[in-house]
Amino acid sequence: MPRSSSDNPTARFSPELEDAILTVNAVAATSATGPLVRTTVERRDLGPRDILIEIRYAGICHSDIHTVRGEWGDVAYPLTVGHEIVGLVAEVGPEVSRHAVGDRVGVGCMVNSCRECANCRAGQEQYCENGNTGTYGSIDRDGTVTQGGYSTHIVVDEDFVLRVPESIPYEAAAPLLCAGITTYSPLAHWKAGPGRKVAVVGLGGLGHLAVKIAVAMGAEVTVLSQTLGKKDDGLAFGAQSYHATGDTATFEALRNSFDLIVNTVSAPIDIAAYLRLLRLDGTLVSVGAPPEPLPVPVFALFGNRRSFAGSSIGGIAETQEMLDFCAERGIAPEVEVIGADEVDEAYERVLRSDVRYRFVIDIDTLR
Amino acid sequence: MPRSSSDNPTARFSPELEDAILTVNAVAATSATGPLVRTTVERRDLGPRDILIEIRYAGICHSDIHTVRGEWGDVAYPLTVGHEIVGLVAEVGPEVSRHAVGDRVGVGCMVNSCRECANCRAGQEQYCENGNTGTYGSIDRDGTVTQGGYSTHIVVDEDFVLRVPESIPYEAAAPLLCAGITTYSPLAHWKAGPGRKVAVVGLGGLGHLAVKIAVAMGAEVTVLSQTLGKKDDGLAFGAQSYHATGDTATFEALRNSFDLIVNTVSAPIDIAAYLRLLRLDGTLVSVGAPPEPLPVPVFALFGNRRSFAGSSIGGIAETQEMLDFCAERGIAPEVEVIGADEVDEAYERVLRSDVRYRFVIDIDTLR
Repeated sequence: MPRSSSDNPTARFSPELEDAILTVNAVAATSATGPLVRTTVERRDLGPRDILIEIRYAGICHSDIHTVRGEWGDVAYPLTVGHEIVGLVAEVGPEVSRHAVGDRVGVGCMVNSCRECANCRAGQEQYCENGNTGTYGSIDRDGTVTQGGYSTHIVVDEDFVLRVPESIPYEAAAPLLCAGITTYSPLAHWKAGPGRKVAVVGLGGLGHLAVKIAVAMGAEVTVLSQTLGKKDDGLAFGAQSYHATGDTATFEALRNSFDLIVNTVSAPIDIAAYLRLLRLDGTLVSVGAPPEPLPVPVFALFGNRRSFAGSSIGGIAETQEMLDFCAERGIAPEVEVIGADEVDEAYERVLRSDVRYRFVIDIDTLR
Repeated sequence: MPRSSSDNPTARFSPELEDAILTVNAVAATSATGPLVRTTVERRDLGPRDILIEIRYAGICHSDIHTVRGEWGDVAYPLTVGHEIVGLVAEVGPEVSRHAVGDRVGVGCMVNSCRECANCRAGQEQYCENGNTGTYGSIDRDGTVTQGGYSTHIVVDEDFVLRVPESIPYEAAAPLLCAGITTYSPLAHWKAGPGRKVAVVGLGGLGHLAVKIAVAMGAEVTVLSQTLGKKDDGLAFGAQSYHATGDTATFEALRNSFDLIVNTVSAPIDIAAYLRLLRLDGTLVSVGAPPEPLPVPVFALFGNRRSFAGSSIGGIAETQEMLDFCAERGIAPEVEVIGADEVDEAYERVLRSDVRYRFVIDIDTLR
């Protein structure tokens, strides 16, 4: 496959695109424990409403690591992960109307849904009652297992392809497709805004975007992080205060303080201690997913009529709204761009929290 | 103390009311394991805004049992419990303006709060940031331990005394002061009403009122009870359907069904199984209080953006609203009236769920 230069927004097509199945370069996991390997994956022929995307950057999400290591269930290896995808439209099916060749586009965590259930009709495809089709590791409508964005190209139904505004740099746009919408959606749903006090637990890939977005929405934002190691960053992102959760005095000082706490940490936390930081009608929403159940004392919920909630990414329309909001407000994640051969090392660094704040793979290194 | 006849709404006063401290008949727990005993308790002299209430009926709440048995923390024995109190105004302090001698009144779970914190100012005295003063077992403003309603009289600040509408029979009014407001408040807060599907878990003292109130609010109500033993009652209270939670098929059939689930059960339940019954943006609110933390899998919250919440009684204004609502809509609990010497036996029957649906003590049997 020839590749387009980054300077040229129009993709050039090779003759083999006329053939049925497209074989493209990718990086894949072949087991729960081994390194990722360079390989190829097959992309389906374009259906009438399909779009072929030439991928430019793919973000590395903690979910990718959980998945390839088998921590979230059985995996059909080899599997190419990656659901923070940006690139440009290389080809479109005959009935495509939402996007045109050369458009800057993105794909997030899902590539299809039933479109008929109440949740899909409400624009909440992420909660599709029949299960949305994940960007990787799901059974696609043709029976194959979906393969994600650590790859040079992907074919996606146009309804699940987002417009990426020009003002967001490509590499910075990638993490918005998962980390961005995962934090934007609960902040919008639980009404982060002027007069509202919001705490963000954890200042990693999700957390740093949660801070930037909540600040842009007008909320007063506090970071709750294990140590004060990233305090300067947190304040630079716009947080008004920053507290170490390793210090028990934090939990005494901040009792009954917050309208909303967004927990971005995937490791188990002392949920009762955090619940007690909520004021009247406050909600602690978890977007981090510890594999074990969290013990919740009901008495901690009784006080202040508190809620413990979960939130999963966002709908397609809301994802577009988020991208437009970030473009308009100049919000972008802090990223470290790596090559395709550096993913294993990046995974190790993610697990050590040694990244400020999101790895993004330069997919040109795969061509 | 002379007692007024039930036929005569005006209380008659004995000369000893002119003295400072009033000693009145009561039933008290003297240990976590022994039977309740007849005794006397002292009521403070009326302050300027205090009301002396001649108690007619006192409901028996599961909380009373948890408390006297030391299951919710240390107890200063002897303790007189009871926080579902109805009677009539026998005497008022010189500055009392809300109630007059002879008025039908009630007292619920709290008799004071700080009145200055944000929650008190918002009319949510039950969530007083400085802790409300419970009707029994709390430290009162004079330093004594508050004593509850299994007693012939009580002295309460007028701001924590409710008007009991004439159309609600005295004995039926008593359980509304705790069981009624405990279920009304979350049903109102989470907007039970036309077009909303509400499930009530457990058909006991709280549950049967939850069903009646939710039905009156216009919701479509389902009862989830361990067996179908009380199905006829549940349907008679207005529920549209009734399912046995002992049958695992129930959890499959009702998946993604409810906007709101009100859990009235104090024993631990499989919270994840119930969460999965919630549809998009549904809330499971617990008003029952198991002593042990409940294990909550975050993945069950991710689906449908579900919330697990707690709710504790209601504010004073809302309690009045509930009484007026019940009077207007003809809602009253099903009660079994007992004498003061039958409380121990009643406790045993409550623990066996052998009551339809709330015991109420005829306080005349204490005079």
